[in-house]
Amino acid sequence: MDLIPLIRNIPDFPVQGVIFRDITPMLANAQAFNFAVEKMIEPFADAKIQKVVAIEARGFIFGAVAANKLGAGFALIRKKGKLPFKTDVETCSLEYGEASIEVHIDAFAEGERILLIDDVLATGGTMAAACRLVKKQKAVIVGISFLCELDAMNGRKQLPGNVHSVLHF
Amino acid sequence: MDLIPLIRNIPDFPVQGVIFRDITPMLANAQAFNFAVEKMIEPFADAKIQKVVAIEARGFIFGAVAANKLGAGFALIRKKGKLPFKTDVETCSLEYGEASIEVHIDAFAEGERILLIDDVLATGGTMAAACRLVKKQKAVIVGISFLCELDAMNGRKQLPGNVHSVLHF
Repeated sequence: MDLIPLIRNIPDFPVQGVIFRDITPMLANAQAFNFAVEKMIEPFADAKIQKVVAIEARGFIFGAVAANKLGAGFALIRKKGKLPFKTDVETCSLEYGEASIEVHIDAFAEGERILLIDDVLATGGTMAAACRLVKKQKAVIVGISFLCELDAMNGRKQLPGNVHSVLHF
Repeated sequence: MDLIPLIRNIPDFPVQGVIFRDITPMLANAQAFNFAVEKMIEPFADAKIQKVVAIEARGFIFGAVAANKLGAGFALIRKKGKLPFKTDVETCSLEYGEASIEVHIDAFAEGERILLIDDVLATGGTMAAACRLVKKQKAVIVGISFLCELDAMNGRKQLPGNVHSVLHF
């Protein structure tokens, strides 16, 4: 199934010079959305993933379905100030700007086998910070999976574990 | 399966006087998360839902899995400025503050059968605005489903369609 025609390119969003990959036409298609998540988790099907971790907000869309399909728990990484309980915090540089992300201090058990999920890999700054949050709680990063990877930005060079992307731009 | 022990009460978040219902312990439990979504969609299993619509950000978690289970498409309602394509906008009053939410102008087809999803029903202000967005595009609101409902706030009185909640506080 070819997902590329269902990804809409939006020039200059959210800032001048960035081409935004709009996944909403793909999500509107039940078969395409299901296929996308199947492809995201395929390399990790036998990896005994115990928890899927996703980054707010689009990451939640893929991460929740991935966790459900893998029979794994689900944990949230959110922008600073959104999580209600005590948190660990990391700062990250983004394709356009800088931000802090956080996770609840009880999100992971020591040695827990983790799959991290997000929609797009650009600079890798957010995902690298997410990995630091996972490691801080002594969980094990088995893999990282994205729907889309912007190859020219070479974000995967700063990520640990088995990095997988379904689509490459 | 009793989900209540997996919902953590956080007093005075995000503002003084509000008890925040923290769903992260429930999400961490794969069986509980799956059960929660099954219960959210149960009344709509035979309702020929064509698209599930969820509200950023926690709504995405339940909406994405609900859409996948129902074999329906998935559409996003987001806070203003987050969606990259042309949008319809509505303003809503919340339990604590006011906000604008929007949806892509091509999110729904005329007559499309819609199930709206969010995690918590409080005042109902956000969901009422979401319903206006759906109606503006002439789709049909078949039902609205929440994980938690704060009964004392009586938010369901301003909502159309079949309103369902799994947990009541």
